[in-house]
Amino acid sequence: MTPQRYKITVSYDGTDYAGWQLQPNHVTVQQQLETAIRNISGETTKVHGSGRTDQGVHARKQVAHFDLHKTPAPQSLKKGLNALLPGNIRIIKAEKKDPSFHARKSTTSKEYRYFIWNAEIMPPFLRKYRTHVTNPLDIASMNRAASYLVGKYDFAAFSANPNRVVQSTVRSLKDLKIRKKGNEIVIIAAADGFLYKMVRSLAGFLIRVGDGSIPPTETSTILSSATRTARVPTAPPEGLFLWNVVY
Amino acid sequence: MTPQRYKITVSYDGTDYAGWQLQPNHVTVQQQLETAIRNISGETTKVHGSGRTDQGVHARKQVAHFDLHKTPAPQSLKKGLNALLPGNIRIIKAEKKDPSFHARKSTTSKEYRYFIWNAEIMPPFLRKYRTHVTNPLDIASMNRAASYLVGKYDFAAFSANPNRVVQSTVRSLKDLKIRKKGNEIVIIAAADGFLYKMVRSLAGFLIRVGDGSIPPTETSTILSSATRTARVPTAPPEGLFLWNVVY
Repeated sequence: MTPQRYKITVSYDGTDYAGWQLQPNHVTVQQQLETAIRNISGETTKVHGSGRTDQGVHARKQVAHFDLHKTPAPQSLKKGLNALLPGNIRIIKAEKKDPSFHARKSTTSKEYRYFIWNAEIMPPFLRKYRTHVTNPLDIASMNRAASYLVGKYDFAAFSANPNRVVQSTVRSLKDLKIRKKGNEIVIIAAADGFLYKMVRSLAGFLIRVGDGSIPPTETSTILSSATRTARVPTAPPEGLFLWNVVY
Repeated sequence: MTPQRYKITVSYDGTDYAGWQLQPNHVTVQQQLETAIRNISGETTKVHGSGRTDQGVHARKQVAHFDLHKTPAPQSLKKGLNALLPGNIRIIKAEKKDPSFHARKSTTSKEYRYFIWNAEIMPPFLRKYRTHVTNPLDIASMNRAASYLVGKYDFAAFSANPNRVVQSTVRSLKDLKIRKKGNEIVIIAAADGFLYKMVRSLAGFLIRVGDGSIPPTETSTILSSATRTARVPTAPPEGLFLWNVVY
């Protein structure tokens, strides 16, 4: 019998995890989910995420799928999993899906948000969820630089060397904008897909533009070089949230 | 020579502390401050808080004073202490004060805020800063009950047995109101001073009023009994913030 496919929407605080993806000798979000599903259903199943998130990166809405031979009601599955999972991972939605649904392959776009606390002092309650930048950042410059990056480009200059074969470093960046409210700055990035450490590289670059280290007019030169250099630092993980996955 | 008195305004995440007050074999906020001050000034000094906060309770603005024979500029002292303190404690202000200033005795009023997340699922990022209540709470009932409590009363029914002699259990509760925005409920309490676990007792009681367990009209009976009973539970510490101290 064909097993039932389930889609889950998951929120997690990445602080205490070695990222999403299963790896030996480290606790990961995928591992916690697979353990909870096994404990609740008695079935060993692989949880497929929409993509991996790195160590310390958070998710407001990550999406994953898995298959079960038992067919619990989604609402019961959600409640049961939340009862077993630690408080830093919550299932916010569970749905039955056709077997053609695939959390990674069916994605049409993803949104990440990178949060910066731009003030002298970091409030203790935000320290794990915001990146602290003390130099005042110029939002207009950051938005000007961002405007050169929206479109379909080779983003190799804004990706870390992943030590793995990537078929293409071309991505369609649909939206990249910077908003400020009080001391909080958020970089909103939407694309059909992101390269390894791409959002943190974009954030690292935009912070350097915002503090005046790089003029926004140099953005196109850096982009078209298609080469990662020290001018594009990787911003720290704590400010990054996988915000939404669209199908 | 008379030492210089300093007033500091301190924000802390109480999650990993056994409260404010120094105690053997436990890490406390007072201890972290005294250690940092000793390391920066070479002087051993006692830090006097406006009052203690319990294990797991947070402070947006706690106030404390201490004396030093060296007289560093407040701005340097603040920067130096923040460089030495862990990120879960931040000095947000430092000031020189006349020796007559006393962080506890000079207080004219204090404000606490108790935060509740009233929804089925607790967002992972708020779990250490909000108390999770799944039953829908009725704000109008809670505000009606609160209206009976504002004034100068014996609050013995809303205080834990402190195992210590308290001269009086009479306090002037200046304000007690409940606000709701989305899934977040906040109980705002201001008084000339609070008894041991008074805010968490008021919160525990108001939650029971909000979920319909206790009619608001019984508030005066409970208050005038001046006896703590099981009808007034102590709400958990993670939702509680020392919000402001007024001089």
